[in-house]
Amino acid sequence: MKLWGGRFAQETDALVRRFNDSLPFDVRLYAEDIRGSIAWAEGLVTAAILTPDEADTIVAGLNQVAAELAANAFQFQPGDEDIHTAVERRLIELVGPVGGKLHTGRSRNDQVATDFRLWLMPAIDRLQAELRQLHVALIEQAEGHLETLLPGYTHLQPAQPISWAHWLLAHFWPLTRDARRLAQARHQADALPLGSAALAGTTLAVDRPALAAKLGFSAVTANSLDAVSDRDFAADFLYASAMLGVHLSRLAEQLILFSSAEFGFVQLADQFSTGSSLMPQKKNPDTLELTRGKSGRLIGHLTGLLATLKGLPSTYDKDLQEDKEPVFDAFDNLTLILPVMAGVIKTLQLRPERMTAQLEAGLLATDLADYLVHKGVPFREAHGLVGTAVQLAEQTGREINELSLAELQAISPHFSEDVSAVFDMQQALQRRNIPGGTGPAAVAEQLAAARHWLESDQKHSSSRA
Amino acid sequence: MKLWGGRFAQETDALVRRFNDSLPFDVRLYAEDIRGSIAWAEGLVTAAILTPDEADTIVAGLNQVAAELAANAFQFQPGDEDIHTAVERRLIELVGPVGGKLHTGRSRNDQVATDFRLWLMPAIDRLQAELRQLHVALIEQAEGHLETLLPGYTHLQPAQPISWAHWLLAHFWPLTRDARRLAQARHQADALPLGSAALAGTTLAVDRPALAAKLGFSAVTANSLDAVSDRDFAADFLYASAMLGVHLSRLAEQLILFSSAEFGFVQLADQFSTGSSLMPQKKNPDTLELTRGKSGRLIGHLTGLLATLKGLPSTYDKDLQEDKEPVFDAFDNLTLILPVMAGVIKTLQLRPERMTAQLEAGLLATDLADYLVHKGVPFREAHGLVGTAVQLAEQTGREINELSLAELQAISPHFSEDVSAVFDMQQALQRRNIPGGTGPAAVAEQLAAARHWLESDQKHSSSRA
Amino acid sequence: MKLWGGRFAQETDALVRRFNDSLPFDVRLYAEDIRGSIAWAEGLVTAAILTPDEADTIVAGLNQVAAELAANAFQFQPGDEDIHTAVERRLIELVGPVGGKLHTGRSRNDQVATDFRLWLMPAIDRLQAELRQLHVALIEQAEGHLETLLPGYTHLQPAQPISWAHWLLAHFWPLTRDARRLAQARHQADALPLGSAALAGTTLAVDRPALAAKLGFSAVTANSLDAVSDRDFAADFLYASAMLGVHLSRLAEQLILFSSAEFGFVQLADQFSTGSSLMPQKKNPDTLELTRGKSGRLIGHLTGLLATLKGLPSTYDKDLQEDKEPVFDAFDNLTLILPVMAGVIKTLQLRPERMTAQLEAGLLATDLADYLVHKGVPFREAHGLVGTAVQLAEQTGREINELSLAELQAISPHFSEDVSAVFDMQQALQRRNIPGGTGPAAVAEQLAAARHWLESDQKHSSSRA
Amino acid sequence: MKLWGGRFAQETDALVRRFNDSLPFDVRLYAEDIRGSIAWAEGLVTAAILTPDEADTIVAGLNQVAAELAANAFQFQPGDEDIHTAVERRLIELVGPVGGKLHTGRSRNDQVATDFRLWLMPAIDRLQAELRQLHVALIEQAEGHLETLLPGYTHLQPAQPISWAHWLLAHFWPLTRDARRLAQARHQADALPLGSAALAGTTLAVDRPALAAKLGFSAVTANSLDAVSDRDFAADFLYASAMLGVHLSRLAEQLILFSSAEFGFVQLADQFSTGSSLMPQKKNPDTLELTRGKSGRLIGHLTGLLATLKGLPSTYDKDLQEDKEPVFDAFDNLTLILPVMAGVIKTLQLRPERMTAQLEAGLLATDLADYLVHKGVPFREAHGLVGTAVQLAEQTGREINELSLAELQAISPHFSEDVSAVFDMQQALQRRNIPGGTGPAAVAEQLAAARHWLESDQKHSSSRA
Repeated sequence: MKLWGGRFAQETDALVRRFNDSLPFDVRLYAEDIRGSIAWAEGLVTAAILTPDEADTIVAGLNQVAAELAANAFQFQPGDEDIHTAVERRLIELVGPVGGKLHTGRSRNDQVATDFRLWLMPAIDRLQAELRQLHVALIEQAEGHLETLLPGYTHLQPAQPISWAHWLLAHFWPLTRDARRLAQARHQADALPLGSAALAGTTLAVDRPALAAKLGFSAVTANSLDAVSDRDFAADFLYASAMLGVHLSRLAEQLILFSSAEFGFVQLADQFSTGSSLMPQKKNPDTLELTRGKSGRLIGHLTGLLATLKGLPSTYDKDLQEDKEPVFDAFDNLTLILPVMAGVIKTLQLRPERMTAQLEAGLLATDLADYLVHKGVPFREAHGLVGTAVQLAEQTGREINELSLAELQAISPHFSEDVSAVFDMQQALQRRNIPGGTGPAAVAEQLAAARHWLESDQKHSSSRA
Repeated sequence: MKLWGGRFAQETDALVRRFNDSLPFDVRLYAEDIRGSIAWAEGLVTAAILTPDEADTIVAGLNQVAAELAANAFQFQPGDEDIHTAVERRLIELVGPVGGKLHTGRSRNDQVATDFRLWLMPAIDRLQAELRQLHVALIEQAEGHLETLLPGYTHLQPAQPISWAHWLLAHFWPLTRDARRLAQARHQADALPLGSAALAGTTLAVDRPALAAKLGFSAVTANSLDAVSDRDFAADFLYASAMLGVHLSRLAEQLILFSSAEFGFVQLADQFSTGSSLMPQKKNPDTLELTRGKSGRLIGHLTGLLATLKGLPSTYDKDLQEDKEPVFDAFDNLTLILPVMAGVIKTLQLRPERMTAQLEAGLLATDLADYLVHKGVPFREAHGLVGTAVQLAEQTGREINELSLAELQAISPHFSEDVSAVFDMQQALQRRNIPGGTGPAAVAEQLAAARHWLESDQKHSSSRA
Repeated sequence: MKLWGGRFAQETDALVRRFNDSLPFDVRLYAEDIRGSIAWAEGLVTAAILTPDEADTIVAGLNQVAAELAANAFQFQPGDEDIHTAVERRLIELVGPVGGKLHTGRSRNDQVATDFRLWLMPAIDRLQAELRQLHVALIEQAEGHLETLLPGYTHLQPAQPISWAHWLLAHFWPLTRDARRLAQARHQADALPLGSAALAGTTLAVDRPALAAKLGFSAVTANSLDAVSDRDFAADFLYASAMLGVHLSRLAEQLILFSSAEFGFVQLADQFSTGSSLMPQKKNPDTLELTRGKSGRLIGHLTGLLATLKGLPSTYDKDLQEDKEPVFDAFDNLTLILPVMAGVIKTLQLRPERMTAQLEAGLLATDLADYLVHKGVPFREAHGLVGTAVQLAEQTGREINELSLAELQAISPHFSEDVSAVFDMQQALQRRNIPGGTGPAAVAEQLAAARHWLESDQKHSSSRA
Repeated sequence: MKLWGGRFAQETDALVRRFNDSLPFDVRLYAEDIRGSIAWAEGLVTAAILTPDEADTIVAGLNQVAAELAANAFQFQPGDEDIHTAVERRLIELVGPVGGKLHTGRSRNDQVATDFRLWLMPAIDRLQAELRQLHVALIEQAEGHLETLLPGYTHLQPAQPISWAHWLLAHFWPLTRDARRLAQARHQADALPLGSAALAGTTLAVDRPALAAKLGFSAVTANSLDAVSDRDFAADFLYASAMLGVHLSRLAEQLILFSSAEFGFVQLADQFSTGSSLMPQKKNPDTLELTRGKSGRLIGHLTGLLATLKGLPSTYDKDLQEDKEPVFDAFDNLTLILPVMAGVIKTLQLRPERMTAQLEAGLLATDLADYLVHKGVPFREAHGLVGTAVQLAEQTGREINELSLAELQAISPHFSEDVSAVFDMQQALQRRNIPGGTGPAAVAEQLAAARHWLESDQKHSSSRA
């Protein structure tokens, strides 16, 4: 059924139909479309367009359509250009001409915006739940590792000792920011466009706030022109997805490094690795690589939608049909990536001996400078003196803690016997019990804050201690 | 002064220095850098690294450095690789070796993150203020135009009559969503990284919450590794900028159309137009075109930063130096675009006669279908009948309201004398007084909601009635 | 069949398999995969790994697999993680253990790169053929309209009269640049990676140039590490697609404008328009809007792949599995957009009376300045004088050609009787017979050049006269 | 001097001027602008608009303007909105009213397109020369390392032994593809738009081909409407830049890994490393990290321009003013990145002992499977058998070459004494002397092909053996 067939003398070209039709992807909105139509039918009773009996007939018909779709028993017809058309066509088949009253005072413009928002809100809830599993996995891995040492890196060069718990939590907090962004996108979706009709508002006396409440929206949209063209919620969702992808890509990248033969700090569980078709000895971090790769796609989806939206005048243009595929694809990918990453973290095997093997005394050069500072040497000068010591050690093929006291004193008279204490790695952690630092007490507080964030209403909390 | 000079035997290549140096753009952070350093100096007193006298000396020196920079009297030296280095170098020149104590327990990693956040928060406040002027301009233009008619378009085809006030407010609400996104970006920036040192947290007993309060932050960052590498606030800002750009581009696009000779609905004030070097008759909407064009740049900045962030392991990598230029550029462009667009709106001249000239009766075809619906015809049938009427009118070169009653009744017996009332444009507006509709009473409520949004604390309100 | 199953004790998690599997999209490469395998089997004879009989058996088996896939009779199994695995699994079922010899000396890394290139080359040929139809449509529309006048616009303001043929050809040449870019992408794909094995080159004595020739490649790849990771051809294709999308979007945008009620220069044929579900009078340029909207998606695909590629070290990483979906999607969309746009152009109905109605005398202001120049007035002065005349006309509500000679002479004594000839629109065209200009003789030459471009080997010609 | 001042009653707002003016960045085009103007002046003699004497006066004036600009002695005025205006204003100051004749028959639309193309062509030549230095550096590093072994990686897991020369050349070939793309961008720029005037072609009888030849263009543009709006050359350049950035980022990423403490395969020369302000022991690969980071920016520039171009109708719109900044910025960054990367490669210090230390026997598992294949075992079976051997070695804490013959024979009777030869790493290289493989003879040929590519006319050669 073409809804606008009355006017056109010539048949629409088959190719054009295939080009224009959105059914292949918007069929996914069927449940939301029918939910929205049921609410609208009830609204039409209030507006005195339908009798209660007519509404009952329509609702019963819609429920049957939904059942057919759920059971994969729905027969699509060549003229079903989108899910809205398909549902209405089938409804009329089932209930007769009264079904033709359903679309009164409504347009596909407000209908599709309503369906899409109805779909997105629980989709985000689902992602939040999956994300929570990853949060939990990070916290659980962190517990018990407050004193497990590994080198912290900057510029991918070993810099200072940190704890494994601190490292894990460094990936926890970015994900809280993602949860926040997802919540913002959901909030942006949470207003009912229905009643905006094609662009100017419906002429029927429907009760929009009541419709909103019935469908689970917190509010109604403020301006009908804006309502039919606003896709900010889709862009907000794609941005939240892209940033989540960026954070997961960074986590994946670092685990790929840490599971390399050269680092060897962690080992992926077998079920999250794959082998090689040619090289039987390989154990490849495919899941991590795909996670990393897919974040490119998420960035692309965001960019694409922004470019599409940029050129449109206000109200509905057909370009907006391009809104759904990237959103569906981002959702589908994230609902795979998130549990996979949670599984990776949960089953990650540590190799603490490899971590400590990389803890060279050079990582405490800053602590050595701080030692001099506490002896009264200005930091800039201390920094230079330690640099000289590092150079001496390197030139003579030793670690900095292998320099003799005499050698050190030749560099600065402020060095004395107590300098050896500087080179204790656990003490180096303990020196950093400042809030946010890697010291075990500080990390214990951080863990408590992380758990608290999880327990509280996540959506509006921030990622701060 | 190279801060890490002690170690290197060979001179750094001049080209490399030019490649690595960030001074040309981060000089812009000088005030924030010095503010942060003053707070840090005071923190070092608490941590017993500086005596109060030393701190006073350093603070006085820093204030002088600030004064020199503000007065353009600061002499940069070849070795000043970034603003942090330049300030510290000059400080030591001014106050002697005690200046070398300032950097104790701090790293450029936490310093630059602090400076950048300090810069961004008031920058966003500034943009919010500029955005507010545009909001005000839209509201003020809207007042008095609740019954000024023009065609509303979908697919750039005239669809239904709307009011000019409703059209303007359709551009008001998207901008409230932008205000919200900017507020979110500001919130994301509002936590102090200082004290995170290079990556693991400082070893000094500074009071981070006190430092935060002194510098105007609401919180301290939760994890030192995350703190030095987190640029979510920059990405959030670039996303908010890109979306604001998209909305402004859409507004600009539509005004370009409306100010074309063919539409002719509005005229730009002379001061917001430009002429042609070759065609003296031209009055070009250059400001609107640039607004439209620059939204591409804003999308590009977002994409670029996301691509850069994607590949980085956690903590600081030099890639992060790429964070500032796009943010500065987005800010600079928006601080021009926003007041220009506010000026355009404020001075926009309407040509209502051109608007009404485009109001053909065909725009009321939907209302005609609704008329039949109220006579009991199911909408789908009514829609088809009106389609037939439209076709008849078109074929005979008339408007739909020029069909005779007899002709209409030949199409459907439900047409009767009262059909003529359907074709009154003002009545068509009045039929749409549903919340969010274009009816004058509804728009009056919408205007009140818009004013209320402006008066309330914008940041956390939503764009909903 | 998992190809790497020997090593793993634990079963791979179902979710992980769904995450990793590429079968849902790479099944599309089945014909290329089998073509490549047949060539490889023959290569293994040369390398003395297979006897000719064994090769015959394998080739026959592969042909049967191909037939099953072509007939949709292939039964996929849960363990078929990609098309390569599925084909080999089925081959072994059909021909027994000898099928297990096929993958000797080959890796999925070089296999998938080969398949993808094999797929892309004819895909580009197909797009070139579709693009050619659009080229032809533009030329055919242009013929006969060398003197059909319409306003040329800059800044969407009427600027100077041009011919409809010139306007159409302005969209012809950008598309020749796209043809060139597509040809470049094809050239980039045209080298055989097979023989690179996993990364280091196969140990078998296969004849790579002979394999290349057999599969229709012009060359073999130069470095095995590069060969398995190079996706430049995919990026080049996505870039060519994005630019083609940009050009089609611009063409679509302008036709949307020209088919608006206000411009009314053209009318889309019914089969390329669609109606409204609510407003029966509407005739919406949906196909053009979708074309415009889809160019955003094409930009997004390019951005996404670049972001994915950016972070990878050399050789194969699983991230590269993300290469195919955007390429397939770009191809699928362009194979719809291009014929639709060709159809739109072929069936476009002109409304020349609407075009000429917009030709105001003001469009000849530049010609008026040129008139003064030919009387010896320096251009800058002439430009100012004409500006004064335009202003006088506007202030007195007239067109510039309605000013009296006396009025003009009051502005400049250089005006004389012959000025009236300036305002003939056809003469204005004739004045622009410079190469590339809108003059009819120049456009006739341009048309000839366009036809010549079409006839010649398009791929390496440029878009220049 | 505002060129369009005659018409406007009101003064243009200062803010608007700052918004519209392009002088801050297009001043960079001054030499090209003056070169183009000199050619135009000579063209105006042919067209009988200037006498030879007038042309001489103008050319002399323009040369003086150029000299002032070159000497930084040019006094810009508040009204100089772009470089074209500034030059013409100053010219008229210097030579009097005759200077006002220069702009006859020309528009800023064709002028700026000409200037920009004139600038881009030698800019690309410059980048090609810089890129060549990197090509040379890679070749020179490769020579002498045809038998220097290191592990080749897939999925960042050691996979098979390769030679350092092969690894270096794997980065050579992608850069040849970049050279090709740059050449294509240059070709796209190589057509003269001058003579297209504002949009419809000039009315003057200038000889466009002669002008083209004088300015060093190979051709003239084919269509004036297209000529003033075509920015394909800028997009092509930004795409070539983005891909070059992607390749350099991948090279940088891998060198960052290889220079980490854990890999330790290479050491950056001091002049290409930097130290830490806090950690004196650090030697950070800042130049590599910046290279990697800046590739994000290059992707962003491309995306931004595509988004800007997408929405424009044909001919000139002011949005196009956004074309220059990203192109200048991409050029500026690449002219730093390329020599820095060439320097990095030239001065890179190898640590072959670290490379060979990572060559475990497991890297030859594929070769072991090939051994079985040569004994007649089908590859699939051989692959499984070797997998069993790998597992046995791993479970018993040995390398695969440490398994006894008896143990191997228990897995497959096809193993015999000669199996020990499989585990010789140099022999493993030798087995891969297939074209494109890592075998020394093959790499020698590859090196020759690389040198040949360098010597030949690079632009049109492809990256294939």
